[in-house]
Amino acid sequence: MKTVSFSLALFAVAVSTRLALSEPNKPVKTTPLKQVLIDVDTNLGIKNWSVSADGRGTDHRWSITKDVLHGGRQEGVDRIRVDNGVLSFDVIPTRGMNIWDVDCGDLSLGWDSPVKEVVHPQFVNLRERGGLGWLEGFGGWMCRCGLASNGAPGEDRVRSNTGSIVPVQLTLHGKVNYLPARSVTVEVTDDDPPVLKVRGVIDETMMFGTQLRLTAEISTVVGSKSLTLSDTITNLSADEQEFQTLYHTNFGSPLLEGGSKFLAPAARVTPRDPRAAEGPLSKWNEYLPPTPGYNEQVYFLKLLGDEQNRTEIMLENAAGTRGVSLLYSLTDLPHTTLWKNTAPVANGYVTGLEPATNFPNLREFERENGRVPRLKKGESHHATITFTIHTDAKGVGEARSRIHGLQGDTRVQIDEAPVPGLSP
Amino acid sequence: MKTVSFSLALFAVAVSTRLALSEPNKPVKTTPLKQVLIDVDTNLGIKNWSVSADGRGTDHRWSITKDVLHGGRQEGVDRIRVDNGVLSFDVIPTRGMNIWDVDCGDLSLGWDSPVKEVVHPQFVNLRERGGLGWLEGFGGWMCRCGLASNGAPGEDRVRSNTGSIVPVQLTLHGKVNYLPARSVTVEVTDDDPPVLKVRGVIDETMMFGTQLRLTAEISTVVGSKSLTLSDTITNLSADEQEFQTLYHTNFGSPLLEGGSKFLAPAARVTPRDPRAAEGPLSKWNEYLPPTPGYNEQVYFLKLLGDEQNRTEIMLENAAGTRGVSLLYSLTDLPHTTLWKNTAPVANGYVTGLEPATNFPNLREFERENGRVPRLKKGESHHATITFTIHTDAKGVGEARSRIHGLQGDTRVQIDEAPVPGLSP
Amino acid sequence: MKTVSFSLALFAVAVSTRLALSEPNKPVKTTPLKQVLIDVDTNLGIKNWSVSADGRGTDHRWSITKDVLHGGRQEGVDRIRVDNGVLSFDVIPTRGMNIWDVDCGDLSLGWDSPVKEVVHPQFVNLRERGGLGWLEGFGGWMCRCGLASNGAPGEDRVRSNTGSIVPVQLTLHGKVNYLPARSVTVEVTDDDPPVLKVRGVIDETMMFGTQLRLTAEISTVVGSKSLTLSDTITNLSADEQEFQTLYHTNFGSPLLEGGSKFLAPAARVTPRDPRAAEGPLSKWNEYLPPTPGYNEQVYFLKLLGDEQNRTEIMLENAAGTRGVSLLYSLTDLPHTTLWKNTAPVANGYVTGLEPATNFPNLREFERENGRVPRLKKGESHHATITFTIHTDAKGVGEARSRIHGLQGDTRVQIDEAPVPGLSP
Repeated sequence: MKTVSFSLALFAVAVSTRLALSEPNKPVKTTPLKQVLIDVDTNLGIKNWSVSADGRGTDHRWSITKDVLHGGRQEGVDRIRVDNGVLSFDVIPTRGMNIWDVDCGDLSLGWDSPVKEVVHPQFVNLRERGGLGWLEGFGGWMCRCGLASNGAPGEDRVRSNTGSIVPVQLTLHGKVNYLPARSVTVEVTDDDPPVLKVRGVIDETMMFGTQLRLTAEISTVVGSKSLTLSDTITNLSADEQEFQTLYHTNFGSPLLEGGSKFLAPAARVTPRDPRAAEGPLSKWNEYLPPTPGYNEQVYFLKLLGDEQNRTEIMLENAAGTRGVSLLYSLTDLPHTTLWKNTAPVANGYVTGLEPATNFPNLREFERENGRVPRLKKGESHHATITFTIHTDAKGVGEARSRIHGLQGDTRVQIDEAPVPGLSP
Repeated sequence: MKTVSFSLALFAVAVSTRLALSEPNKPVKTTPLKQVLIDVDTNLGIKNWSVSADGRGTDHRWSITKDVLHGGRQEGVDRIRVDNGVLSFDVIPTRGMNIWDVDCGDLSLGWDSPVKEVVHPQFVNLRERGGLGWLEGFGGWMCRCGLASNGAPGEDRVRSNTGSIVPVQLTLHGKVNYLPARSVTVEVTDDDPPVLKVRGVIDETMMFGTQLRLTAEISTVVGSKSLTLSDTITNLSADEQEFQTLYHTNFGSPLLEGGSKFLAPAARVTPRDPRAAEGPLSKWNEYLPPTPGYNEQVYFLKLLGDEQNRTEIMLENAAGTRGVSLLYSLTDLPHTTLWKNTAPVANGYVTGLEPATNFPNLREFERENGRVPRLKKGESHHATITFTIHTDAKGVGEARSRIHGLQGDTRVQIDEAPVPGLSP
Repeated sequence: MKTVSFSLALFAVAVSTRLALSEPNKPVKTTPLKQVLIDVDTNLGIKNWSVSADGRGTDHRWSITKDVLHGGRQEGVDRIRVDNGVLSFDVIPTRGMNIWDVDCGDLSLGWDSPVKEVVHPQFVNLRERGGLGWLEGFGGWMCRCGLASNGAPGEDRVRSNTGSIVPVQLTLHGKVNYLPARSVTVEVTDDDPPVLKVRGVIDETMMFGTQLRLTAEISTVVGSKSLTLSDTITNLSADEQEFQTLYHTNFGSPLLEGGSKFLAPAARVTPRDPRAAEGPLSKWNEYLPPTPGYNEQVYFLKLLGDEQNRTEIMLENAAGTRGVSLLYSLTDLPHTTLWKNTAPVANGYVTGLEPATNFPNLREFERENGRVPRLKKGESHHATITFTIHTDAKGVGEARSRIHGLQGDTRVQIDEAPVPGLSP
């Protein structure tokens, strides 16, 4: 917190009020545009704000809208809707800069979670239900898991204030999914077409503990069917620190359906546990329709990349006419997990594609197996994922070809049982 | 969450502002009236709103007022004050649609809790003090205990995401007392006299866990001394689910005083523990004045009903000139608990009348003894309680007669000690 | 909660709006001035408010400004900036009436915590990391530790609702640091120069548990370099209750630097643990510059007072040209702890001067050793600390002389190892 003069605070209120109440809303017409919406250091928190292509003498249709959610467990959640004219999605600063509803024409990504609200962190206790409290607000399309830890809940050991090593109970998937952004900036570039950007900064910090900062930028080119996530995690401490990050990207109907397929250039596929080994393993990458009594099946993947170690994975529908592919670097995110949960719709019919620094096991196990990266003082980790939506068979086919190209002649090894070192 | 256009959000703000700032407030004069105050699906959260009989050309005086509480641990709590001209009470959407202060002329129900605020869920950690965190916000007249569980804190077993059975630590009386309503609607019927209704919907949901929805309607006829609670609990999951509900209805001074009596048509009265067995059991249904060193005494009741299995219970003051009776169905709420806590006023001088689906023991024990009901997919449980305030000896006497009528010739069995199967 | 008429709520909104938006802000010109800013009982929560010496025809410059913090984990935190013309500081009603940034000319007190926000209680779970969740919002200059307990986390035993003695897990330093004020009043006296006062009331209460009320008054004389904290802790219960209070007063750069000194009239200095015993003990009261790998060193102090049992302690910089001294009564606060944490700046370079009712060990240990005071029904404990900033060698020297005077001929006993009864 910095001291802020009263006049500045008044100004913030005035701006917010003007933007919220003026009708019609008259945005500044200059481009490029840069607007700070939230900022701890200047004590700024604009509740309602909007900008669009209107009146800018351009053929492109786009808009960015900031508002606040109301009602139930979503009371007070900040939301930024980005609409590039073709693709629109919600960024949630209050929930780790996660991405909620994604729409592209009549295709919606995301899934129908049993949790119908964008739950505010104030209503979630991560320690609930044996450390599974994270699931009380689990919904939306893409949520990060991290930063100090992700994966299964359970005991690990950390250094305490006195310097001794003490046990701690880690909770499922860490904290960042429930941390609010300390700074949010919206940018529109003067490219043609323009690029829409939302950038947020999140501190996962405490005294005598984690000191990691996430800078997350979500960008999309106006008129495109792609969005790019570009994350930087920085060690703010004077000491070396571990970190973990996993991109829990979730798809339900309509992309997920009986006969949908997951495509990836894979060297090895390993079932996490006996349940996953039930497979059938020959159909590890195919999906059932909503299935009563289905228990989740999780596969750990060793993927193949190009000469720059970049890979592409895709979920496509049964007809192969729609899909979403993810492009990312295996250098940054070496481990990918596939989560299949083709349960009945009411219980959450969903699959998760999860590029990560690690597999989502308990951190202690991941550390023992060399999958918990470390950052030196001031050092940063970068990861970029580009999501592209394919809305016809041609687009799906091209992505499939690229993935087959990455697979090349390599035969995928499908393990018949969990493998020591990969599963606890 | 659904996507809401900016204009709708602006509209919501405008409505709220107009209603809050216009002076005098000019309500719509049409009746029947229906107003949505909170709604997740349309992202609506009206902070201040009011409607009254004024200008409607009617003899009836009534009003409904929505505002937000401020200060301390009650910051941000929504409140709806319903005044039927004779009886007024607060409904608290932020706290499980509970009912706080009730006033009928110079008679106030409720009690003077050590907790002087309507504590917002953000300030309560249910896991505090060995799972007794619920008590940090315990106050008010009627609070529900449930929905997945109620009763004592402790270990039970549930199904995890992987399908395995895992231990969980349940907290006292469950979560619904600290869950905010996702939807709140106010209605005024065009009956003569009109009926005032507040209806709220609360989701107790998570991924891989509880998926229960409570729809709670509180209604009162203008000019009456009664209010009716009508609850529906629905299983939103594709699987069968357990649930529990208990209506923790609390009375302090002036209705509770030395010599006050609890009246019920009882077949059997069982002390919960040795402390309750100390009684004296002959006075199990009589109250002491505030008593230093008094420890709570809890009795489990088997009540008698009429041919439709409906029962009536009452708390009356020492002089028998004032009382409150509860009418409900033993089919819906088969188990009733009496909680006597005639401690010093400063510590909470209070008694709880608690109709429920079960006794407030640990859920595992209740399940073993067949007192945890189950709902199939899509199935609902209904419960209705009508509370009537008696403000003179005649009203109290009539209720007493009805209760004696239900008792009939049945002699009450008063157990001298806790009974296996009823108490752990 | 009391019922508040709608018109009063409207009035509160109107006041808040007027004060926030009117430009220029026209305060009432009368002195003395008394303004309630937050009040549970009348449901008042003024967000923005300000008053200053402007237009009062006085030579004194001063102002008091109330606003609300925004962004990240500080969203919704109330702040009151008090500026006496020479000394300014923030009082945080949402965080136990703690004092954050303190500025006197170019000298800032406080420290650069790894936590850069004034974290709102909604984002803190005290049970995190083995009961060290308190550290997730640890920052600022002066924070209280208490009221039911302070010190190390761990198990203690309390009386439950049934009257039995049950184990509870206490969390680091108790709850008051994360409890919001239920009432806040600002006063400006008509003295010449005037005294600026902020008074807050905080309830640490629950049913069947702690029932303590803190009334905290922070005052400063216009134009002075001093501020006085005057606390009253009252037992609201009908039963005798324990309490604990500790004033965690934290200093970083520039006052803390290599060669800074802590001065106190000490009869005995005892290292808390082997790490503190490493000292070197001859330099127990001298400070290192930021030091990689440094683990905290904690010393328990037995101080000397004057004939009224009042003592004075001071932190001075290396050159002896700047310092802060604390004056308080050893009758009220008999035990003082010195916390040295000369870690690298990024990790929190800080020292804590901590007058208290006890040493910050687990409460059970403190009780066994007679350092947990008790309050009878209705009884109160008072403590007053006056902080004075010295901005030149003369002021530092005079304070040093006073401290030497208190030391007199008493030789300080420096224990070479932890002492049973002082450390567990």
